[in-house]
Amino acid sequence: MRVLILNGPNLNLLGEREPEIYGSDTLDTLEQQCRERAAALGIEIEFAQSNSEGEMVDLLQRHRDRDGVILNAAAYTHTSLALADTLAAFEPPVVEVHLSNIHAREEIRRQSLTAPHAWGLISGFGFRGYLAALDLLHARLSEGAGE
Amino acid sequence: MRVLILNGPNLNLLGEREPEIYGSDTLDTLEQQCRERAAALGIEIEFAQSNSEGEMVDLLQRHRDRDGVILNAAAYTHTSLALADTLAAFEPPVVEVHLSNIHAREEIRRQSLTAPHAWGLISGFGFRGYLAALDLLHARLSEGAGE
Amino acid sequence: MRVLILNGPNLNLLGEREPEIYGSDTLDTLEQQCRERAAALGIEIEFAQSNSEGEMVDLLQRHRDRDGVILNAAAYTHTSLALADTLAAFEPPVVEVHLSNIHAREEIRRQSLTAPHAWGLISGFGFRGYLAALDLLHARLSEGAGE
Amino acid sequence: MRVLILNGPNLNLLGEREPEIYGSDTLDTLEQQCRERAAALGIEIEFAQSNSEGEMVDLLQRHRDRDGVILNAAAYTHTSLALADTLAAFEPPVVEVHLSNIHAREEIRRQSLTAPHAWGLISGFGFRGYLAALDLLHARLSEGAGE
Amino acid sequence: MRVLILNGPNLNLLGEREPEIYGSDTLDTLEQQCRERAAALGIEIEFAQSNSEGEMVDLLQRHRDRDGVILNAAAYTHTSLALADTLAAFEPPVVEVHLSNIHAREEIRRQSLTAPHAWGLISGFGFRGYLAALDLLHARLSEGAGE
Amino acid sequence: MRVLILNGPNLNLLGEREPEIYGSDTLDTLEQQCRERAAALGIEIEFAQSNSEGEMVDLLQRHRDRDGVILNAAAYTHTSLALADTLAAFEPPVVEVHLSNIHAREEIRRQSLTAPHAWGLISGFGFRGYLAALDLLHARLSEGAGE
Amino acid sequence: MRVLILNGPNLNLLGEREPEIYGSDTLDTLEQQCRERAAALGIEIEFAQSNSEGEMVDLLQRHRDRDGVILNAAAYTHTSLALADTLAAFEPPVVEVHLSNIHAREEIRRQSLTAPHAWGLISGFGFRGYLAALDLLHARLSEGAGE
Amino acid sequence: MRVLILNGPNLNLLGEREPEIYGSDTLDTLEQQCRERAAALGIEIEFAQSNSEGEMVDLLQRHRDRDGVILNAAAYTHTSLALADTLAAFEPPVVEVHLSNIHAREEIRRQSLTAPHAWGLISGFGFRGYLAALDLLHARLSEGAGE
Amino acid sequence: MRVLILNGPNLNLLGEREPEIYGSDTLDTLEQQCRERAAALGIEIEFAQSNSEGEMVDLLQRHRDRDGVILNAAAYTHTSLALADTLAAFEPPVVEVHLSNIHAREEIRRQSLTAPHAWGLISGFGFRGYLAALDLLHARLSEGAGE
Amino acid sequence: MRVLILNGPNLNLLGEREPEIYGSDTLDTLEQQCRERAAALGIEIEFAQSNSEGEMVDLLQRHRDRDGVILNAAAYTHTSLALADTLAAFEPPVVEVHLSNIHAREEIRRQSLTAPHAWGLISGFGFRGYLAALDLLHARLSEGAGE
Amino acid sequence: MRVLILNGPNLNLLGEREPEIYGSDTLDTLEQQCRERAAALGIEIEFAQSNSEGEMVDLLQRHRDRDGVILNAAAYTHTSLALADTLAAFEPPVVEVHLSNIHAREEIRRQSLTAPHAWGLISGFGFRGYLAALDLLHARLSEGAGE
Amino acid sequence: MRVLILNGPNLNLLGEREPEIYGSDTLDTLEQQCRERAAALGIEIEFAQSNSEGEMVDLLQRHRDRDGVILNAAAYTHTSLALADTLAAFEPPVVEVHLSNIHAREEIRRQSLTAPHAWGLISGFGFRGYLAALDLLHARLSEGAGE
Repeated sequence: MRVLILNGPNLNLLGEREPEIYGSDTLDTLEQQCRERAAALGIEIEFAQSNSEGEMVDLLQRHRDRDGVILNAAAYTHTSLALADTLAAFEPPVVEVHLSNIHAREEIRRQSLTAPHAWGLISGFGFRGYLAALDLLHARLSEGAGE
Repeated sequence: MRVLILNGPNLNLLGEREPEIYGSDTLDTLEQQCRERAAALGIEIEFAQSNSEGEMVDLLQRHRDRDGVILNAAAYTHTSLALADTLAAFEPPVVEVHLSNIHAREEIRRQSLTAPHAWGLISGFGFRGYLAALDLLHARLSEGAGE
Repeated sequence: MRVLILNGPNLNLLGEREPEIYGSDTLDTLEQQCRERAAALGIEIEFAQSNSEGEMVDLLQRHRDRDGVILNAAAYTHTSLALADTLAAFEPPVVEVHLSNIHAREEIRRQSLTAPHAWGLISGFGFRGYLAALDLLHARLSEGAGE
Repeated sequence: MRVLILNGPNLNLLGEREPEIYGSDTLDTLEQQCRERAAALGIEIEFAQSNSEGEMVDLLQRHRDRDGVILNAAAYTHTSLALADTLAAFEPPVVEVHLSNIHAREEIRRQSLTAPHAWGLISGFGFRGYLAALDLLHARLSEGAGE
Repeated sequence: MRVLILNGPNLNLLGEREPEIYGSDTLDTLEQQCRERAAALGIEIEFAQSNSEGEMVDLLQRHRDRDGVILNAAAYTHTSLALADTLAAFEPPVVEVHLSNIHAREEIRRQSLTAPHAWGLISGFGFRGYLAALDLLHARLSEGAGE
Repeated sequence: MRVLILNGPNLNLLGEREPEIYGSDTLDTLEQQCRERAAALGIEIEFAQSNSEGEMVDLLQRHRDRDGVILNAAAYTHTSLALADTLAAFEPPVVEVHLSNIHAREEIRRQSLTAPHAWGLISGFGFRGYLAALDLLHARLSEGAGE
Repeated sequence: MRVLILNGPNLNLLGEREPEIYGSDTLDTLEQQCRERAAALGIEIEFAQSNSEGEMVDLLQRHRDRDGVILNAAAYTHTSLALADTLAAFEPPVVEVHLSNIHAREEIRRQSLTAPHAWGLISGFGFRGYLAALDLLHARLSEGAGE
Repeated sequence: MRVLILNGPNLNLLGEREPEIYGSDTLDTLEQQCRERAAALGIEIEFAQSNSEGEMVDLLQRHRDRDGVILNAAAYTHTSLALADTLAAFEPPVVEVHLSNIHAREEIRRQSLTAPHAWGLISGFGFRGYLAALDLLHARLSEGAGE
Repeated sequence: MRVLILNGPNLNLLGEREPEIYGSDTLDTLEQQCRERAAALGIEIEFAQSNSEGEMVDLLQRHRDRDGVILNAAAYTHTSLALADTLAAFEPPVVEVHLSNIHAREEIRRQSLTAPHAWGLISGFGFRGYLAALDLLHARLSEGAGE
Repeated sequence: MRVLILNGPNLNLLGEREPEIYGSDTLDTLEQQCRERAAALGIEIEFAQSNSEGEMVDLLQRHRDRDGVILNAAAYTHTSLALADTLAAFEPPVVEVHLSNIHAREEIRRQSLTAPHAWGLISGFGFRGYLAALDLLHARLSEGAGE
Repeated sequence: MRVLILNGPNLNLLGEREPEIYGSDTLDTLEQQCRERAAALGIEIEFAQSNSEGEMVDLLQRHRDRDGVILNAAAYTHTSLALADTLAAFEPPVVEVHLSNIHAREEIRRQSLTAPHAWGLISGFGFRGYLAALDLLHARLSEGAGE
Repeated sequence: MRVLILNGPNLNLLGEREPEIYGSDTLDTLEQQCRERAAALGIEIEFAQSNSEGEMVDLLQRHRDRDGVILNAAAYTHTSLALADTLAAFEPPVVEVHLSNIHAREEIRRQSLTAPHAWGLISGFGFRGYLAALDLLHARLSEGAGE
């Protein structure tokens, strides 16, 4: 069972950028927490980050044989039709994750271009949202679809 | 650790209503699955459903001493400012859950009046979303806030 | 052949409320006229009124085994996504009726959230609209769908 | 008692055009059904169809001495202010009819420019809507206004 | 001289809910202050609160023989067309009151569906707004309309 | 205790202008009623009127040492950001007053640019609104803020 | 000096249609008044009316060699891009005339698709607007452009 | 017969300002042409210009006993609700004039706040529009209303 | 292989009308070029033009047995729901053609009501667009659908 | 004669991605078909694809000395002002091509930011649209502009 | 080299008004800093402030022979079409200055009616923006336009 | 004192691209002028350009230890939420610069997603805007914040 975790622009600044919104832990900490949970679930993960919309499209395309994707496209969530198109061309389930509660933020962050092509959305639980995403993918992939 | 799980209008029809969107399992099955997970986590739950906006406001107000709430307000998510006000007056963390992916549905279902007052939103994973909500509340309540 | 006739908020004031729009006959007169026509058509009717959105959802759900519904949701026509969801979960044909011509009134009354889930809409003919609705349901139910 | 039944653009294609929306019966069948019902009610009808907005205005103007009009302006319902103006200049009651439920279709078909000038609207019952319109006109014209 | 004072959803939480907006005094204190002022003015008041839109419609309808109404519909001010319809069917003068200045709050709270059917609006003076409403009703009812 | 009562454009026509909306009493009558109430409350008032936006800004700025302001900016309520800025620079409490119920009038009069910077709004009670404003200022200034 | 006066849909009903808006004189009276004024100015006029958008386009195209056009396109003013295109292809000056003041009517009548291609607009003076249009064309054509 | 001709902001720059839109003649020339036409018609005119919204309101109020007004409010046409209110309080007929064709210009100039309160609008004929306005007022005032 | 080429309003003015947008060649030249290309491809064409929306609907309906249609509906592209409905009732492929690049023109010309019912759109290549349309129809009809 | 054919994001997935919209042939097949047609026309082509907006800007800039460009910017058509700016800086003619009929798809795909800077648009003919684009460029470049 | 520095409404309150936005220095300090910089650059300045839109139009008109203008129209920036018209009639370069960053403030302050007629805009640098404006005017006027 | 000057897409075409808007000097000239001014001010600059949104995010992130940034994001100013997020994570002051006056251009260029996170905006002065930006940064950095 292999899962790609793909993080979008400015998430490499985690811990530095607007800590009142995103917390003070870094992307490395997040990766480590994901690796631990994945190991416990028997999932093999790749953990990537990019500031480039095109590179994120490339990365998603290259990992189309994975069993699932966890995507936090950050700002591109709200502006990238290209990413949405890539997801629309995708078989494996995609869980869209946001660290902050995007519905509690400014207008432009309340719409997601990518979410319509995802299995579902987890928004607002900080790092724990990634772990829940791993749990959900694991449950679906081991038990079959069934929802 | 006590948690209220409150379900909104028409969710009592689960299994009958638009099964291509909401699946064919009933609200009883959902309650049973929640009770099992809650028992495993050591959480005591109340599981309620109402078709009335005012009754939901009453129910939420009466359970303000709970440690957390899982709320699937169904149609009222998108039209009830009264429920939003009740949540705004709330201390304990609220996890908003939707069975279907509201971002993949019609325009009116893409906005949530209640979500800005929730800890976070889980949308689109069927019954599993409730279980993930229980996990998230359990993690937060046992470990402290920390996100 | 059994049909529910459900009337929404403030229709109990009929005859008192804005008679220049709604006429001066009362809800009792309307019920009586409906009962006469129904008797003539061999239809058994229940005639209900409620000011509560949630109660209307309850009433509709409880009568899901009827052969048809005539619904005048009044103000909730334009604001209740919950009622729309109930109708979407409905098999029997629903005829939406309005006493006044909603297209000749203010902007907010020109959209109907419930109508997309109805068989059709009759708007503007006063009490006669209810009688026409009974005729239409009778025609459909006795002859088969066929339109 | 004389009534004009006027049908708008593309209704001459009835039975051929998008049968999943409009059914497979033709305009001739509709005319025949209307003539039968009218005969039963003692109404003399003229049954016309035109693809031209201007011709429809002409037709309506020429029949201003009728006792009533049944109008299905089809696409012009949503775009013709000229037809709306003709109706506004009209004494006899106008019943607006649509075969399909216009509130269940795309945005542009949910507004009617002509309806504000009609006695009322019947939308979504197929051919039966025309028959109901005849009944309603007959009721109003034989009993007096009274609604 | 009899006046109904009707309070809407979540106002029973007064003193607990968002005290930075609504202050720290409770609904009981408000009732007491109203009773004192009413007594001084020789007005007999009923003081009610409900979280349910339908119940508020019921309450207003049942008190249609009062000489005046003071209405703080809270969240329903902005979403309830049903309440607006009830007021439209009302003879006695209605004073709409809001504790906070609704024009200084978020967009959705700047429109009032009910206000067009009220005598006037008092918004933003805390509890004192209710007392001013009593004064205004008293002045109007004792002196005659005259404005 | 000194209070400025400032009236905006066309209020000098009171009694002549659209009496069906604004009544038939003149600005002089209003001033006299205000002076009587103010005298009874021990408030010293200045009563001014201007048709010029700039002059109203000047007047407000010159009276910044008053204990309170009653402002009926008339048409400028809806178009003057300059007046709004002046109020934003103001310490003393401002009561915004309108003779007619602005929520019952045309769209453009339903928004107020100035109200977000006022203590509160009184709209629709004719001259009595000014007297209520004096009462409210008196109550606040003599008792302390307390709301 | 030759001028076409072209009138749009429903203007043939003048005197019958909504007399509170359009007055009680007929199109014949208007033609007669225009002919008198034109004779006095030495202008040869053609006076036409049509209910058909396409026919109006034809008529305008056929009279492209006239020295000027007076156009009251009635409802098509607000909906006909085809007429606007015809005017855009026109050399001779076009005076757009409306009997009623279109800026004092409903929203849809406040925009004119044709006016941007006219020399100017005269709206609201009843029949006199046509006479003023003749005067203006006469002045321009006899004196040269000069404005 | 006395008429006020009131010109708004920047019209004193006529001849200098954007001559490709407004022509190269000055306000003095316009005044002279108006005086000549007025003399011929036996009308006594006052010709004024102001850059100030408030002053224009003052001027209009002071001339409320005139038999008619010709108003070119320039930029205030599109932004001044105060001027619109002044006109609404006006008995004598007001002719709104614009030198350029406001319907052929940018969006903001296509709406007129003042026009709904005018007798009618003349837009786009340069100076000749003022002369036509004088003719129209003269015709109405000498012959009586009659349109 | 038979194809209808249908041109809409004002295209008969080609060569005269706004030559900076539409070029200086006439509709006859266009017809001749189309006939030459069609002859080379072995296609039999009918070439029609009409200024009337209704006539265009008639023409399209009468040619429903053709193998393809090339439609330049000109202004009706953007305003005619009736034409759109006709196309929706059409089996043979429709190529929508515009001489100018409609995406480079004003807002109203950027939407096409008809295009959603066409096989595709060619916009902006002058007469050559018609020739390309013939080529595309020929390729599709001779080779089978296959795209 | 040299032409660049530039394809945007996700077009490398052609044949895999949403075959019901884009067909089942791959980008290689498209390239081969283009090369064959280009060879027949004596055009030398470069055929490129990129998922990156910036890289597409780079590619277009580097090929500014080509005689023409065929651009299918895919999702960036609707979101990239940067690409639009690059085209605005371009001399050689650009043909914008889309495989699917963008006017028949969701709202966001109906606007094109790039099209206003193209010679024209071909949308909806599958691979054949590219071949038509080559034909059109060839015709223009060999015969001179002439449209 | 002579330059007018014109400040709009409420800027005379500088130092008192919302110091968290506008700083605590007064307009006198600003004038002094401008005079120092102007002296160093050899520019003769006039420094004015007005709360009146009309007076600002007058002031600008009277200084049309200056070599440049620095304009901070404050609130009128966003509401005054009259000021925009005055600038449009202006030859000398205008630099629009704002103390605060208007793009970081509420919606209404993000549009500027005057900026389209200015040479450029400097927004957000406090008093330093005025000094930069003087530098820019000096550079342009001494070196010639050249940008 | 070190400052990054970052230029966005298509600015490398400066001198070639739309010279009527952007002038005929090249990016090299701009760099040279900036270097001269920077040298005079004792500022060390890096001068970069990129056509890629992601690369611009990378560049900004890598230079977060600079003392200031001058950013001309060109088209990305209006579409890139990712760049806005990067700026929001930034300590050093950012001056946003545009060569042309973006408020005088088309709608989409009047909003800036990045400006709310900048110290201020300079728009419309050509190359001189960059020099003014250097002056402003120098003043702030040498004197301390103080505005």
